[in-house]
Amino acid sequence: MDVVALAGGIGAARFLRGLVRAVDPARLTVVANTGDDITVHGLHVSPDLDTITYTLGGGVHPAQGWGRADEAFAVATELRDRYGRPDWFTLGDRDIATHLVRTEVLSRGGRLSDATRVITDAWAIPFRLLPMTDDDVTTMIETVDGHRLHFQRWWVGERAEPPVAQVRFDGAERARPAPGVIAAIQRADVVVLCPSNPVVSIGTILAVPGIREELAAKPVVGVSPIVGGRVVRGMADKLLGVVGAETSAAGVAGLYADLLDAWVIDDADADAADGLRAGGLAVAVTDTIMSDVDVTTALARTALGLVT
Amino acid sequence: MDVVALAGGIGAARFLRGLVRAVDPARLTVVANTGDDITVHGLHVSPDLDTITYTLGGGVHPAQGWGRADEAFAVATELRDRYGRPDWFTLGDRDIATHLVRTEVLSRGGRLSDATRVITDAWAIPFRLLPMTDDDVTTMIETVDGHRLHFQRWWVGERAEPPVAQVRFDGAERARPAPGVIAAIQRADVVVLCPSNPVVSIGTILAVPGIREELAAKPVVGVSPIVGGRVVRGMADKLLGVVGAETSAAGVAGLYADLLDAWVIDDADADAADGLRAGGLAVAVTDTIMSDVDVTTALARTALGLVT
Repeated sequence: MDVVALAGGIGAARFLRGLVRAVDPARLTVVANTGDDITVHGLHVSPDLDTITYTLGGGVHPAQGWGRADEAFAVATELRDRYGRPDWFTLGDRDIATHLVRTEVLSRGGRLSDATRVITDAWAIPFRLLPMTDDDVTTMIETVDGHRLHFQRWWVGERAEPPVAQVRFDGAERARPAPGVIAAIQRADVVVLCPSNPVVSIGTILAVPGIREELAAKPVVGVSPIVGGRVVRGMADKLLGVVGAETSAAGVAGLYADLLDAWVIDDADADAADGLRAGGLAVAVTDTIMSDVDVTTALARTALGLVT
Repeated sequence: MDVVALAGGIGAARFLRGLVRAVDPARLTVVANTGDDITVHGLHVSPDLDTITYTLGGGVHPAQGWGRADEAFAVATELRDRYGRPDWFTLGDRDIATHLVRTEVLSRGGRLSDATRVITDAWAIPFRLLPMTDDDVTTMIETVDGHRLHFQRWWVGERAEPPVAQVRFDGAERARPAPGVIAAIQRADVVVLCPSNPVVSIGTILAVPGIREELAAKPVVGVSPIVGGRVVRGMADKLLGVVGAETSAAGVAGLYADLLDAWVIDDADADAADGLRAGGLAVAVTDTIMSDVDVTTALARTALGLVT
């Protein structure tokens, strides 16, 4: 069975630890959001690609869910203390090695997907990890008080506090899916939407022209990132209202209405199941808290079982 | 008194610790060799600029004479062990912060001299440190067995072992002196040639069109890098023969014959003094081993005294 998964960062990475046990990883393609990518100290940082790589490669900071385990910060300390550089987006030393590898590939004329392959090969990632696009797409937050902030500036720098008026994906309208993305979707027997932020993770991927259209013809199953009417982590609650959706399992499903065939919701949201089914979705109600790999593998199997 | 010093790496940096006590640092311009510059993991590394900055800024590794004190190597270890990157030119973590700052300035369209000012400002260097040029000049070693190696590849990567047929300064013929270099020389009351490698440090600077010509009109005093017929450090002995000079205080003076007015040699080379004087040079014989700052300051004063 050929599978494509659309993925953001931490939630997707944890889900993928189960998905790789539920399918043949050699037939899995993961398409990751790159709208959060940011250039820091001249380094091209791809947070979602790296979170997936470090998590699946066994190098992620376990409690944090992103960044490297056993990390040090000598470079960041020097940049701040010696050179007075802004430190709101702090890079660890081991992490910097990844960004150096990526930035060097790009500086030699390589594409982000070329850099990603070099990095995932080094980590022996057993599936194909693709950026959604090799083009520049930048998620920008327009705040209620009229500022335009890079997503990371709002999320990391401002702790997601400034109220949001609008989310824009700069460059998306001109972006092309990265090589292999469309072909993988066309070949896929099922497409999985990982439990990621529906606005600034999955939504960003869907904003790349061609991807959403291609998904419409495919069996698509999503795993709700909502548990008990709240986001498990992250800032989806601050952004769902901006796109006119409520923070609920049904609200998120509504954002995917044109392409979704099946939806996995948490036991805590069981009340929503009947309404979702009445709307034409196949629904599974289960434990979506990915507390260990076994639970996560069962979750992935449940999702796949809805559409295969 | 306005002073210009032409400088390589370790020897020059140590000499400058004395020179800044012998002159008004605000009227001192140091022009450094950039022929050894190399791009490593996409970072622009300027070894001589950094050795001078770290030494004068108080951050140099004291025993080594280059690189940072209290250095760590998390990034380099990751690049080698995780990404399989070549590690023959190892960068420390603190040092990488400097290269990130420099590379970012360059990637935004800034010049090497712009980056150098940012870095020397952060280190509160009390004189003006200029790269010899903002253009790409690369010292290449042509070995006897027909290979062309970047200077660092030969010196660091091959421990200066492959016999050398020729030294070339790629790009030098098209290079322009960095902004301020020619004006500083024209304004200078004296120009000092630091005790640096005459072939691949001072020689590289002199290969930038315009610099050597401008020096001809100025009082120029050099400090011999030779002690007792041997180089104090480095590989000058392997390169002097290539340019037809012997490894001696007189041999090095001969390379500068067209521009040198005065030459400071070590007590161990006192025998050469009469011959040098007969050739028209003012000569001082003194202790040139820069064992501490007081000795080095005295050495700088002796040099300046020969031409002022």
